[in-house]
Amino acid sequence: MRIYADNAATTRVSKSAVNAMLPYFEEIYGNPSSLNTTGQIAAEALGKLRCEIAELINAKPQEIYFTSGGSEADNQAIITAAKTGEKKGKKHIISTKFEHHAVLHTLNKLEKEGFEITLIDVNENGVVKAEDVEKAIREDTALVTVMFANNEIGTVQPIAEIGEICRNKGVIFHTDAVQAAGHIAIDVEALKVDMLSVSAHKFHGPKGVGFLYCRKGIYLRNLIEGGAQERGKRAGTENLPGIAGMTAAMKEAVEKIDENAKKLIPLRNRLIEGLEKIPHSRVNGDKEKRLPGNVNICFEGIEGESLLLLLDEKGIEASSGSACTSGSLDPSHVLLSIGLPHDVAHGSLRLTISEENTVEEMDYIISSVTEVVDYLRQISPVWEELQKGTREYIL
Amino acid sequence: MRIYADNAATTRVSKSAVNAMLPYFEEIYGNPSSLNTTGQIAAEALGKLRCEIAELINAKPQEIYFTSGGSEADNQAIITAAKTGEKKGKKHIISTKFEHHAVLHTLNKLEKEGFEITLIDVNENGVVKAEDVEKAIREDTALVTVMFANNEIGTVQPIAEIGEICRNKGVIFHTDAVQAAGHIAIDVEALKVDMLSVSAHKFHGPKGVGFLYCRKGIYLRNLIEGGAQERGKRAGTENLPGIAGMTAAMKEAVEKIDENAKKLIPLRNRLIEGLEKIPHSRVNGDKEKRLPGNVNICFEGIEGESLLLLLDEKGIEASSGSACTSGSLDPSHVLLSIGLPHDVAHGSLRLTISEENTVEEMDYIISSVTEVVDYLRQISPVWEELQKGTREYIL
Repeated sequence: MRIYADNAATTRVSKSAVNAMLPYFEEIYGNPSSLNTTGQIAAEALGKLRCEIAELINAKPQEIYFTSGGSEADNQAIITAAKTGEKKGKKHIISTKFEHHAVLHTLNKLEKEGFEITLIDVNENGVVKAEDVEKAIREDTALVTVMFANNEIGTVQPIAEIGEICRNKGVIFHTDAVQAAGHIAIDVEALKVDMLSVSAHKFHGPKGVGFLYCRKGIYLRNLIEGGAQERGKRAGTENLPGIAGMTAAMKEAVEKIDENAKKLIPLRNRLIEGLEKIPHSRVNGDKEKRLPGNVNICFEGIEGESLLLLLDEKGIEASSGSACTSGSLDPSHVLLSIGLPHDVAHGSLRLTISEENTVEEMDYIISSVTEVVDYLRQISPVWEELQKGTREYIL
Repeated sequence: MRIYADNAATTRVSKSAVNAMLPYFEEIYGNPSSLNTTGQIAAEALGKLRCEIAELINAKPQEIYFTSGGSEADNQAIITAAKTGEKKGKKHIISTKFEHHAVLHTLNKLEKEGFEITLIDVNENGVVKAEDVEKAIREDTALVTVMFANNEIGTVQPIAEIGEICRNKGVIFHTDAVQAAGHIAIDVEALKVDMLSVSAHKFHGPKGVGFLYCRKGIYLRNLIEGGAQERGKRAGTENLPGIAGMTAAMKEAVEKIDENAKKLIPLRNRLIEGLEKIPHSRVNGDKEKRLPGNVNICFEGIEGESLLLLLDEKGIEASSGSACTSGSLDPSHVLLSIGLPHDVAHGSLRLTISEENTVEEMDYIISSVTEVVDYLRQISPVWEELQKGTREYIL
């Protein structure tokens, strides 16, 4: 048995997304900027896909900018707001401590360029308080960027509340919706979001494609300079097959959003309840304000990496932290942000399931994790100390 | 009959490239940064593809950085050299007047940030003189960036000579090889190139993927910040299907480079000879130092756009200028750079053929263009003036 439970890292591309891409390789292969028939057929297809994507988040087609993925969209959104603010003497940016590195590293870069960055604390449940964002807003705040749902612990943030606050205060609000899109309904009008980043491969679309929603009236800055594609705001021949695959996958995901949640939430809760029974464990992140497919749990006295490897041998494909930093030995900044001590943050396990998973698989995961945690604790010097009482339990 | 002769804008994806991509959508779909088996299978595939790409240009695998395409690679290369230079007080950059906009617009941005840009003149044959580059190099020159082959007129530049000069002077040398890769042999060691940009969809690979070669020892700067992909230099989950498609297409193109040239050059020359017979025309760019598939020709007294549209009606898919700027009414900066007056530059036609084209198609293009130019001249007020002698012929 192999169980893929790493869907927050990436997903299998759906059959419908693959089928949507295929015509664009050998048939509709034109360059949308070419004036000839082949080019214009491609341009027409691109326009149609843009309308479809826009509709899925209640945006206007001209507010959609196709990118190579979520990281690019995050970078472009943040740099746009920073440069726009800078022109008005506003060099303060608000974000949170547990954003994706595409946001945090871009903010680091801006800090070196003289911007002041305020990173809001996250509460122990992994949810940002809208009132904390409000308190942090200053006269010179150029941007608030708060992720829609966290990539490690799956907690969903109060985006509508933050949107309302930012709109009232006249501050640009960006949200990294990479983990949310296709999993939670998104309506940029209702949420009062100004910019929003999406990546296709997180909802069974292809890798290498995403989009940035940028509200009309915000002057988008180029991250990639060159040709006049995407209304001059993102150079490079449009990745039409990728865009077609993303659109098909997102349509499918959005159409099935309730159906999938209804299937996933009981599976997720079964998994959480089963794993919580392991002593000295802690589920990370709010259990309600949470992506339907995310489970994140820490086990005291063990190393997350050993747990991962042994689970993998049992056919369970999970993750500790996020894939992007999984090569790193540092504990997850997300887990530290919700108050976990270093020692415990090292022993974390992320299971991100999809609607393809089954109850039997959940039960197999529960029994396997229980068994492996038990085994690892038997050989753990830390666990030995905890048992002897020479070290104190945290969890 | 439909003849696609816009291969410099984009190409049909080859069957072998499509087949190379397919397993990466539903089978090898893991995130290469994930430590689980699915992720590690993807990581292994990525490593293998990187080796294959590197070998095709005689580079080391760790010198290859996968990007979303040529524009991104150009932007990153130029910004890298600029920032590296800036640290040493070097804020002068040398390029040419007929680069792609991905280069020119990035240079514009740097100029606004205080860099000094020298754009070398191009001779009337569309070839840059290496000695002009040498003369322009100063103590504070941070970068020389000269395209490998021009995207409009197909002229091939003296890259090895410029590489030699830059290496001797200790200046970083970047070349935008988007039009050259897969069409002309590239050996980064022999050419002494430090950075080189490639885009897959110009050689029958997929859109939305390319790579930047960056010589070991040059500290590459991120354009996209975030996760630690591409050794921390390019964030965003790797577009593995795209990379697989690009690798297959490039391997095929490089293997057949001589065979294709042998087929294409006679077709191209037949086309040039046939079209040159049209009076008051001029072939743009050197006829020898030229991409095997590129024909670019001006006809006095007509508008390029009308020519394009009428040819399209006859099933011939061509281009004026480059696709990236084809929506623009300004005459091509490339044609102006080789000394064509505005009036004549407006009447240009670019035909970029592939190895799939035939002799019969060339003859059909020749007769069609001859006919359409004749027709357009009959209804052209400019042509009337030229005929009456109230306006002087330029060509």
